[in-house]
Amino acid sequence: MSTVSLLSDADLSPAAAKVFADIRATRQTDFVNNFWRALAHDPALLERTWSAAKQVMAPGALDAKTKELIYIGVSAAHGCDYCIASHTASARAKGMTPAEHGELLAVIAMAAQTNRLAQALRVPVDAAFEQP
Amino acid sequence: MSTVSLLSDADLSPAAAKVFADIRATRQTDFVNNFWRALAHDPALLERTWSAAKQVMAPGALDAKTKELIYIGVSAAHGCDYCIASHTASARAKGMTPAEHGELLAVIAMAAQTNRLAQALRVPVDAAFEQP
Amino acid sequence: MSTVSLLSDADLSPAAAKVFADIRATRQTDFVNNFWRALAHDPALLERTWSAAKQVMAPGALDAKTKELIYIGVSAAHGCDYCIASHTASARAKGMTPAEHGELLAVIAMAAQTNRLAQALRVPVDAAFEQP
Amino acid sequence: MSTVSLLSDADLSPAAAKVFADIRATRQTDFVNNFWRALAHDPALLERTWSAAKQVMAPGALDAKTKELIYIGVSAAHGCDYCIASHTASARAKGMTPAEHGELLAVIAMAAQTNRLAQALRVPVDAAFEQP
Amino acid sequence: MSTVSLLSDADLSPAAAKVFADIRATRQTDFVNNFWRALAHDPALLERTWSAAKQVMAPGALDAKTKELIYIGVSAAHGCDYCIASHTASARAKGMTPAEHGELLAVIAMAAQTNRLAQALRVPVDAAFEQP
Amino acid sequence: MSTVSLLSDADLSPAAAKVFADIRATRQTDFVNNFWRALAHDPALLERTWSAAKQVMAPGALDAKTKELIYIGVSAAHGCDYCIASHTASARAKGMTPAEHGELLAVIAMAAQTNRLAQALRVPVDAAFEQP
Repeated sequence: MSTVSLLSDADLSPAAAKVFADIRATRQTDFVNNFWRALAHDPALLERTWSAAKQVMAPGALDAKTKELIYIGVSAAHGCDYCIASHTASARAKGMTPAEHGELLAVIAMAAQTNRLAQALRVPVDAAFEQP
Repeated sequence: MSTVSLLSDADLSPAAAKVFADIRATRQTDFVNNFWRALAHDPALLERTWSAAKQVMAPGALDAKTKELIYIGVSAAHGCDYCIASHTASARAKGMTPAEHGELLAVIAMAAQTNRLAQALRVPVDAAFEQP
Repeated sequence: MSTVSLLSDADLSPAAAKVFADIRATRQTDFVNNFWRALAHDPALLERTWSAAKQVMAPGALDAKTKELIYIGVSAAHGCDYCIASHTASARAKGMTPAEHGELLAVIAMAAQTNRLAQALRVPVDAAFEQP
Repeated sequence: MSTVSLLSDADLSPAAAKVFADIRATRQTDFVNNFWRALAHDPALLERTWSAAKQVMAPGALDAKTKELIYIGVSAAHGCDYCIASHTASARAKGMTPAEHGELLAVIAMAAQTNRLAQALRVPVDAAFEQP
Repeated sequence: MSTVSLLSDADLSPAAAKVFADIRATRQTDFVNNFWRALAHDPALLERTWSAAKQVMAPGALDAKTKELIYIGVSAAHGCDYCIASHTASARAKGMTPAEHGELLAVIAMAAQTNRLAQALRVPVDAAFEQP
Repeated sequence: MSTVSLLSDADLSPAAAKVFADIRATRQTDFVNNFWRALAHDPALLERTWSAAKQVMAPGALDAKTKELIYIGVSAAHGCDYCIASHTASARAKGMTPAEHGELLAVIAMAAQTNRLAQALRVPVDAAFEQP
């Protein structure tokens, strides 16, 4: 159970309702997932988080699917179960294939092991890697 | 300073030297970075790690640059300074532009904040996100 | 399910029972939560952990509610679901308002994103921030 | 060394320069720390991050010093050296005393140990802690 | 629910079935746990992960039980619920006593608190600890 | 540089001096490392941390070297550079051989990768692993 109640549409403040309307319009679906329903208790936090997510996750120099893959990588490293579940669903909706999912998992595993090895070995950064 | 010495080419065991030769052949450069020089004390660990990295980071369903972006995302979430430095250099060598780097950073920041929000709120996973 | 059984009062060793009595006296309630029931298998660890918690979380230079807020921040960053649930309840019992909870969540989100940005950017510490 | 160059005032784009002007006006100092100089390569990310930080860290239901303490707690749990250095300096500038710093450290240590104990023990959340 | 289906024996590709046969032969049991059933969607990842696990977790300079204790320590610090559950069971199967479990938990708690203290204090490494 | 000054022996309060005397007597060396010199600003925190460390890291059901190995595993997963440096030195002083160090690193790498895989896959815990 969440640490705050999940607000139904009927419970929203006008400010939160406005954000929900934008979520629905942007995503072209009536479905609003639990994350936003929990955040809706604090309309300023809801608005800031949604507005940043909308901007950041839209296609730009990187396409939307690639952004989802990076997002899943970060979420796995942070151990966020909710985020892994929701963004794996998003990545699939944006076209992630089973083969791509498998390679994403392999990169996450690879990074996790070399990250902890480099830290346990205290490897100094090579001069060649420093930004000139 | 690292927790083990960084082995020079002259210090390598035959098994480690064989891995270094493959690193050089695969990457088509004489340069072998410190991570492998620290791992070289344990040829089995060196061989297993290099062989997995070579397989995982090669282009497949995902291209090599996308894999580097995911790698950087995981490394940032794990706070691995060495890995961030070395893979940011790799990503650039594979064509990451400043605009792509900026968007990568934005996705990392976005995921970090929503990861910790979802955890602090203990948001339950929506039924819609469960794999059928 | 926990990795050890949760001990009922009837199962406690005399050393563990003594700690439970102090938990009840200090908190002025008969309720002893699962964390202590799991720790009770190792009375030395139980005693050391409770005794530190009692000392650290009591009002001092910082008031008890502020300490709970910091505790929740650390627990969110560690992804500890149990700790988030129990200390959010504690913070509320010590007077945390919905507005304070919202701002706590906003600070956690802010720190999470700038933490990972500063790490991904490898920002060097400014001389001005070094302790003189 | 950072993964991007730290921009001097002369190197800023007009959009980044506008954010720097607001940082200086808000903080009433000419000093702009390295974090913003690294972010300045991506004016949209710079603007979004600064604007959120300005809003979140200002006094509200929680005072500015308490927010810094929470920030340090999260940053310690994320192992962000830059953030610990900069926000410990900020907290002192906002009046954090040595006694408060000591208690902050004690709460961080307490949370870290109980977080990992609760996770290693897989303690189930008590019904009493669930939000009604 | 997992982000991929858990494959039953009947669903396995020939490559995955070969790995399952080796898991069964190595462990001398018919039981194959969920982790491998989820990985089995990607036979290359399954094979690489199992082959590394088999090699790394076998008795060597360190005995198999000690390796499980280290594994649990890392898993607790990463907050991996599945890994804590499965490797606590493994450690018990390899002879971990309740007293050893209690001391393992105490070391995890000790490391967690001093790790975050050393980071929050930014303690510089003593010259005496540097590898000569 | 640390966030507090590192206290020399001449700067210690009587309470801190008493702890330093016990550190020296217990370890049978005059050397007191920086971690304790930073903690010494808060004698209560210093005393509590040292007293717990002394108790926890002493040989018991697990020998002192095994405890150091677990400690290094947790510290690597937390990315604590100071702790990795100091406890790798401690483990060597307690007899850790290069072969044992190599296997420790291999277990850390193994756990790191399977931890993040299990989390990214959201693998449900097998009934067989639940504590009866």
